[in-house]
Amino acid sequence: MNSTTSLNARLRTPVMSAHDASALIRPGMTVAMSGFTGAGYPKAVPGALAERIEAAHARGEDFRVRLLTGASTAPELDGKLASVDGIQLRLPYQSDPTLREKINAGEVDYLDIHVSHVAQHAWFGFYGDIDIAVIEVSGIRPDGQLIPSTSVGNNKTWIERAAGVILEVNEHQPSGLDGMHDIYYQTALPPHRKPIPLLHPGDRIGGPYLRCPPEKILAVVKTEAPDRSNAFSEPDETSRQIAGHLIDFLRHEIRHGRLPPTLLPLQSGVGNITNAVVAELGKEGFGGLTAFTEVLQDSMLDLLGDGVLDAASATSLSLSPAGLARFANHIAKYRQRLILRPQEISNHPELVRRLGCIAMNGMIEADIFGNVNSTHVMGTRIQNGIGGSGDFARNAYLSCFLSASTAKNGTISRIVPMASHVDHTEHDVAVLVTEQGLADLRGLSPKERARKVIEKCAHPDFRSMLQDYFDRACRESYGKHTPHLLQEALSWHQNYVQRSSMRLP
Amino acid sequence: MNSTTSLNARLRTPVMSAHDASALIRPGMTVAMSGFTGAGYPKAVPGALAERIEAAHARGEDFRVRLLTGASTAPELDGKLASVDGIQLRLPYQSDPTLREKINAGEVDYLDIHVSHVAQHAWFGFYGDIDIAVIEVSGIRPDGQLIPSTSVGNNKTWIERAAGVILEVNEHQPSGLDGMHDIYYQTALPPHRKPIPLLHPGDRIGGPYLRCPPEKILAVVKTEAPDRSNAFSEPDETSRQIAGHLIDFLRHEIRHGRLPPTLLPLQSGVGNITNAVVAELGKEGFGGLTAFTEVLQDSMLDLLGDGVLDAASATSLSLSPAGLARFANHIAKYRQRLILRPQEISNHPELVRRLGCIAMNGMIEADIFGNVNSTHVMGTRIQNGIGGSGDFARNAYLSCFLSASTAKNGTISRIVPMASHVDHTEHDVAVLVTEQGLADLRGLSPKERARKVIEKCAHPDFRSMLQDYFDRACRESYGKHTPHLLQEALSWHQNYVQRSSMRLP
Repeated sequence: MNSTTSLNARLRTPVMSAHDASALIRPGMTVAMSGFTGAGYPKAVPGALAERIEAAHARGEDFRVRLLTGASTAPELDGKLASVDGIQLRLPYQSDPTLREKINAGEVDYLDIHVSHVAQHAWFGFYGDIDIAVIEVSGIRPDGQLIPSTSVGNNKTWIERAAGVILEVNEHQPSGLDGMHDIYYQTALPPHRKPIPLLHPGDRIGGPYLRCPPEKILAVVKTEAPDRSNAFSEPDETSRQIAGHLIDFLRHEIRHGRLPPTLLPLQSGVGNITNAVVAELGKEGFGGLTAFTEVLQDSMLDLLGDGVLDAASATSLSLSPAGLARFANHIAKYRQRLILRPQEISNHPELVRRLGCIAMNGMIEADIFGNVNSTHVMGTRIQNGIGGSGDFARNAYLSCFLSASTAKNGTISRIVPMASHVDHTEHDVAVLVTEQGLADLRGLSPKERARKVIEKCAHPDFRSMLQDYFDRACRESYGKHTPHLLQEALSWHQNYVQRSSMRLP
Repeated sequence: MNSTTSLNARLRTPVMSAHDASALIRPGMTVAMSGFTGAGYPKAVPGALAERIEAAHARGEDFRVRLLTGASTAPELDGKLASVDGIQLRLPYQSDPTLREKINAGEVDYLDIHVSHVAQHAWFGFYGDIDIAVIEVSGIRPDGQLIPSTSVGNNKTWIERAAGVILEVNEHQPSGLDGMHDIYYQTALPPHRKPIPLLHPGDRIGGPYLRCPPEKILAVVKTEAPDRSNAFSEPDETSRQIAGHLIDFLRHEIRHGRLPPTLLPLQSGVGNITNAVVAELGKEGFGGLTAFTEVLQDSMLDLLGDGVLDAASATSLSLSPAGLARFANHIAKYRQRLILRPQEISNHPELVRRLGCIAMNGMIEADIFGNVNSTHVMGTRIQNGIGGSGDFARNAYLSCFLSASTAKNGTISRIVPMASHVDHTEHDVAVLVTEQGLADLRGLSPKERARKVIEKCAHPDFRSMLQDYFDRACRESYGKHTPHLLQEALSWHQNYVQRSSMRLP
């Protein structure tokens, strides 16, 4: 009560209920919310908004919003709003099962956008005006500056671009987050842009707080709720094999002088496999590592704690409940070496290229020529989105994609004749890894790549089918630079759609 | 004779014939040559090498080399070496008819690489050791520094990385080239990279000359020969219509405050259509423009001469004979405002993003969802290569792709259901333009993009076929985020391969 009063006095802004705050959002508005990989998203206003939308629909009224975020959120946000058909358009990333179904049923328009592009596109005006931003913060300082929460995402841009701002102050977030963020306020529109003065993943180039003009704050809502549980399974045998192949390769590169013993800044996509790679690096005696990545998962936290990792830069802290507890209990140990930045900076092409990141991302499938599909199951169903994989793959020192060689109990080969959707082209994919092995594609022509991918990465159950396709393509293809049989190129996917297996009948 | 003697004395290096110099190149060597879009390539040594290769083959000996350049060269280089089967591997770009045939027959391994990636990949060691560099320069200064020729390309890197260097001093190149280049020597390997201090296309951040340790120079060959004729046809009606649509769009963006009246730095791919766009900009009253591009064609030279273009940055001067004469005659007028840089800098992602380029590139085809194929005819036959289109499209402020809506007398639609090869993904394509119209894809979901592309860009002869495909896909597709009919998606290409037309029989 006391703190509410003082917050009121400080802000001259009503502290109100989520229900009341959600009434500020009207049908057709463009609403930009915080949230990145299930961290730092608003916990209360989206649910209250969903209730209003449901009530409006029951009255026969149309009520949908255009919804922008940092990346994926949680059931309390995407799930609730999707379940009441409250989302007209969604960008730039999602991973919610309910929302995914609506998108793939053709009921929600979804824009799948590079993580580093979103803020600048908003500034360029490509997404139109932003009516309201709903931003979770972990606190409001006496001077009015905002202490960011467990993710930064696009919050700086949403606050700047939105006509009005609803703040959710989540008192459940660790108080030790204060001071951990680095918010760079020197971006500009071309032709006024300057170099971004970051030379090392641990550099701080901005200040720790977000700024918002007090007159823009329409409401403050107090919450006390944890982030979504971002639990990962313990690395399984497949993940450990993939990690082993990649670590052998990194050692090989060190021996040949193409990587320093401390490697180069690691980028690790979200998921169990990339989590396993990071965990194994810790066990394998590496030290003095750094990370310039998008999301900090449990395994990186362990390496920071163990002294394997000197510094880590990200835009989101996506931890399991146990990881979050460890983080909160030992925050002093982490705060100096962990920096959360706006996603525009954490994924910036200029910085990824300058730092020479080692990019490690999962994939849905790769074709024998090294084109990678990160987004579309069977070419048509969106899974999540491209996220930051393109920001890193395109500009990294080494661009690696990792996956088990099969999926769905062996009915799907992750290595296919032709990718059914391409998010990363042959030009941007250097290394493919499955539990079967690692294909180093650097310096190889398309046909050399195909031979290597089939030999090293394909599952034995599909290897001869791939070899047969490739051999016939080499004989019969119209052009023999990138040999394909156009009638057959997508038949594996079509077979799966028709009879739930890519295997020969 | 006198100048040869003085050159000898200055260099302590034998001035020798191309025939003798070519004997330094032995079978299996990796040879890095100068040359970018038919400018600044060595004129004599490649032909002499081809003669040696032909003689060796006649004796039953194997003699092929791995050949690296900046980009495309000319019949005297790629043509001659390909015609004697002297090329084992070629990178990063080519446009020679003879070489193209060998690649598409499966006889030459070809690596198609982003223009900005080549130098760093060579430094990273991804292409192995470089045995000999053959570099055309327009002169050697008394202090031993090298005056670059009409292209810079990868010459800095080739000289630094090669074990030995053969210089071709081409006295036919305009002497006024001296002072026009800007060679940036501050690149480094990660983790030692610094920001590149370029804020404007006209900035000079290095010095005008290339450096080569004298002990590395194995031979100096004197030549006196023009670059390949890079003549372009006068803009035809189709090109003018495409230019008109794009210029209308740029004016629209200026009116809405999304572009300044002086636009943003222009990048213009090589070709008649992009040449026409630049020419039309000059006629339409634009002024104070700048260009940050890869190749300077005739039309940009005209705009520099007319004062429409304030400054232009490129890596190659690819002019028609008439353009080259104008350039040589008025070199003082151009030299201050025209800068030729290493291709690593002219196409650098850091700079393209910072400057906010307007990227305008041709294409082979686009699909209805905005994926662009820049390289493969019918998905399998390489045309030229990706060149710099990816460097710019991925990082530009606006990424535009331009093409006539049909090819081969209307038998090929440039707008297809599914691109048969993807070089630029949906994430990186903002605007598609044909003579039919312009599709602004910013902020649109896949299905919205498809409707817009079919309506605005497709040729009327193919529009209803595309609409029919899309309508059926929206009903029958496995997933309805990016609707496709997998059995039919590549059938247009297959039809063309089988019966030389994409039209319905």
